[in-house]
Amino acid sequence: MSKHFEGWPHVIYAQQFSREWLEGEFLPLTDEMETVFHNRGCEALRGMRMVSLFYQPSTRTRMSHEFAMDYLGGRVVFSSENAREFSSGSKGETLRDTIQVINRYHPDVIVIRYDRQIGAELAAEVSNVPILNAGDRDPGQHPTQALLDLRTLFKRRGGVIDGLKIAMVGDLKNGRTVRSLSYLLGKFNDIEIYYVSPPDTQMKDDVKEYLGRHKVRFTELTDLRDVAEVMDAIYQARTQKECGTVIDRNDHSKGYYIVDKAIVQMMKVNSIIMHPLPRVDEITVDVDGDPRAVYLTEQIDSGLFTRMALLKMILAP
Amino acid sequence: MSKHFEGWPHVIYAQQFSREWLEGEFLPLTDEMETVFHNRGCEALRGMRMVSLFYQPSTRTRMSHEFAMDYLGGRVVFSSENAREFSSGSKGETLRDTIQVINRYHPDVIVIRYDRQIGAELAAEVSNVPILNAGDRDPGQHPTQALLDLRTLFKRRGGVIDGLKIAMVGDLKNGRTVRSLSYLLGKFNDIEIYYVSPPDTQMKDDVKEYLGRHKVRFTELTDLRDVAEVMDAIYQARTQKECGTVIDRNDHSKGYYIVDKAIVQMMKVNSIIMHPLPRVDEITVDVDGDPRAVYLTEQIDSGLFTRMALLKMILAP
Amino acid sequence: MSKHFEGWPHVIYAQQFSREWLEGEFLPLTDEMETVFHNRGCEALRGMRMVSLFYQPSTRTRMSHEFAMDYLGGRVVFSSENAREFSSGSKGETLRDTIQVINRYHPDVIVIRYDRQIGAELAAEVSNVPILNAGDRDPGQHPTQALLDLRTLFKRRGGVIDGLKIAMVGDLKNGRTVRSLSYLLGKFNDIEIYYVSPPDTQMKDDVKEYLGRHKVRFTELTDLRDVAEVMDAIYQARTQKECGTVIDRNDHSKGYYIVDKAIVQMMKVNSIIMHPLPRVDEITVDVDGDPRAVYLTEQIDSGLFTRMALLKMILAP
Repeated sequence: MSKHFEGWPHVIYAQQFSREWLEGEFLPLTDEMETVFHNRGCEALRGMRMVSLFYQPSTRTRMSHEFAMDYLGGRVVFSSENAREFSSGSKGETLRDTIQVINRYHPDVIVIRYDRQIGAELAAEVSNVPILNAGDRDPGQHPTQALLDLRTLFKRRGGVIDGLKIAMVGDLKNGRTVRSLSYLLGKFNDIEIYYVSPPDTQMKDDVKEYLGRHKVRFTELTDLRDVAEVMDAIYQARTQKECGTVIDRNDHSKGYYIVDKAIVQMMKVNSIIMHPLPRVDEITVDVDGDPRAVYLTEQIDSGLFTRMALLKMILAP
Repeated sequence: MSKHFEGWPHVIYAQQFSREWLEGEFLPLTDEMETVFHNRGCEALRGMRMVSLFYQPSTRTRMSHEFAMDYLGGRVVFSSENAREFSSGSKGETLRDTIQVINRYHPDVIVIRYDRQIGAELAAEVSNVPILNAGDRDPGQHPTQALLDLRTLFKRRGGVIDGLKIAMVGDLKNGRTVRSLSYLLGKFNDIEIYYVSPPDTQMKDDVKEYLGRHKVRFTELTDLRDVAEVMDAIYQARTQKECGTVIDRNDHSKGYYIVDKAIVQMMKVNSIIMHPLPRVDEITVDVDGDPRAVYLTEQIDSGLFTRMALLKMILAP
Repeated sequence: MSKHFEGWPHVIYAQQFSREWLEGEFLPLTDEMETVFHNRGCEALRGMRMVSLFYQPSTRTRMSHEFAMDYLGGRVVFSSENAREFSSGSKGETLRDTIQVINRYHPDVIVIRYDRQIGAELAAEVSNVPILNAGDRDPGQHPTQALLDLRTLFKRRGGVIDGLKIAMVGDLKNGRTVRSLSYLLGKFNDIEIYYVSPPDTQMKDDVKEYLGRHKVRFTELTDLRDVAEVMDAIYQARTQKECGTVIDRNDHSKGYYIVDKAIVQMMKVNSIIMHPLPRVDEITVDVDGDPRAVYLTEQIDSGLFTRMALLKMILAP
């Protein structure tokens, strides 16, 4: 069994990971990481150095990576939360130059969130230092989010992904997390995806073609109520205000894209309600306390363990 | 004697602290912290993790907290200096979600500066991790500033706060530091406060009602010259440019709100001139060298020892 | 031989350094630092604290200093990447106050990038803590960049700076790096500088007068092709978009200010192509792979070793 994924050691997009690696390497290691976390950390990455380079803001994702490094005993030697606004970006330097420069300082890993799709891929092309894609855009991917989503599903479903019926809801056109998760689910069997979105924010063709090649059944619809009761999971996409597509979730005349009490009451008792955060109004707050809601709990935890697992396997295999 | 304050372990507003705790616990511990500082630090908080989450900018306050953590041997695992502009804030997520997420990473303390009044309080409601309010707004409070102000007065006055005559000057309506200090002084006896401000930036009623209940005498006036010679301390409030209220301090036709050489010459030899910084033109620079001026020296030092004391007692009691 | 430079321990402008110090102290120490780097660091600055205060954005320069501190075993206790936008700056406080405040926390060194020329100098006037000028502006200096440029030339030329023929190209009026390097080269013998720029961005008189006093020959011209073949080094200045002077480098009717394949083919086989980064279009990317190009390699390395050497000699002499 291969201990490596395609494109090793760079984590750029969700298609890189084989089912063999996911089940044989990644998921078991996240459990080890959970133990490390509950032990308040370890020294596995002692002396190792992370650079955290965010061209697009994200408190949450940056924090998850920086905590992951810390819990493994490594340190974040340099962190920028708005690389776009200043420096390189605003002065017009290409990302390619920046990554080459950072390589000269010999960090052990570079976490990058870039504001265009090709960012992490370009970075990996010129980098000897492992690149972790912390989300790119337009439409982009967010592979570590997909891995944490997978782990969340895996743990909640007793170690089985096959046969999953999942609804992905909202702005699917611009949502990088639903894109990456779709790619990842393509590695498994008997998956059924229900894309619930307004007609103008449907999932893009590149993902749908990929699913076709990987025998994943998908259906496009506009009303979550039509499928809520048979879903194993509802994955609510984030409202992409910065992409200009805002859905009026309280107007149900053209569809139903909100997860509220009405939807939750339809759902199976052992189903799961997921969201990548940050939330605007896609899930009403009265759903937060429901035992099926995992977006403020298990998804966050799996995110930390996922980043820890990636760092551990890449930096101290 | 209680070793804890009301609302323990969260530090949200100045009213939380009892005189017993201030004199019996807090102030003595700041002296211990001064010794730790002069010994170049200690290891009391070894392995402990701070998250520093600033929605509103402040180099100085963030630095004071992060140095305090460092001098105690702890570390700042994540720091954001402009959480508002991006991430959570700009994407519309509620602070409540953000604090719940941060809690999952098990930091030992969260320092938060929020851009609205209710911020730290909301955070404390959903946080198992201690919250330190590093200043909220509109009008808000800044409880650790009030504690450092109190310590500065206490040290300069030979260990006595009772009987203090203090003038608070300038934009009292929007100044969170004068609000918090007023609340804190309400715990002591025979305090006289002189609120010197233009009519449109007078101290708000909530504070004045509190003072009434706590038998603190206060007087409102518009000319600092009327009281400068009998004051034990003059506390100059910061010009709140971001609140839109700018006082023309060189136009004395409608009042006198500036601390300049003329005022200083009226003041008692053992009086104190205070300012929370940053300064615009509220105190003229020719006052800086006066032995009564403490805003660039003892207030800064007390700020560091205050944050160290709070971190020490909450994280390693 | 003096182990110190003028103005010790503050590094404010390039004129501070004597040839004796450069050759006897600085350059040998950068070689030691190269060894430390290849050994993955040392503990020379264990327990020492850096404050990194950037009023003007620069991912690259901040990273170089913070990595330098890390490789020597010290730590960055506080770092701000946009001090200008918030806090002190935006609230109108003077830099003088800020530096005095930071001094109270007893850091071991303050790295400052300020948005006006007098910044680092003002800081040094009120600071007991060593100040490192990481670039000021209008037109300003960037002394550590000049030192790294000098080291790059020194290593490539087999330990000799005397007799150097160097072309500095582009926006020389606003370019702080070409200003600082000119000052530094004034310490050596038989230097010839060719300033290649449009008439409206010529090198300023203060530098030219300095060169006159130090017997450095300089010539001003507008076409790089006139001198490319006899140059030992071509130093391309950065396009200063923020200064409003943009050169159309593809319009050769009024001059030739670009380093492209045509220029490189004219250049001597052992010449050097330098750039302070970030690059816009001043050097075409097809030049990057040329063995004479050092801007993505040796200049970056020398930058790290330069900052390490300065930190080492100032903090742990």
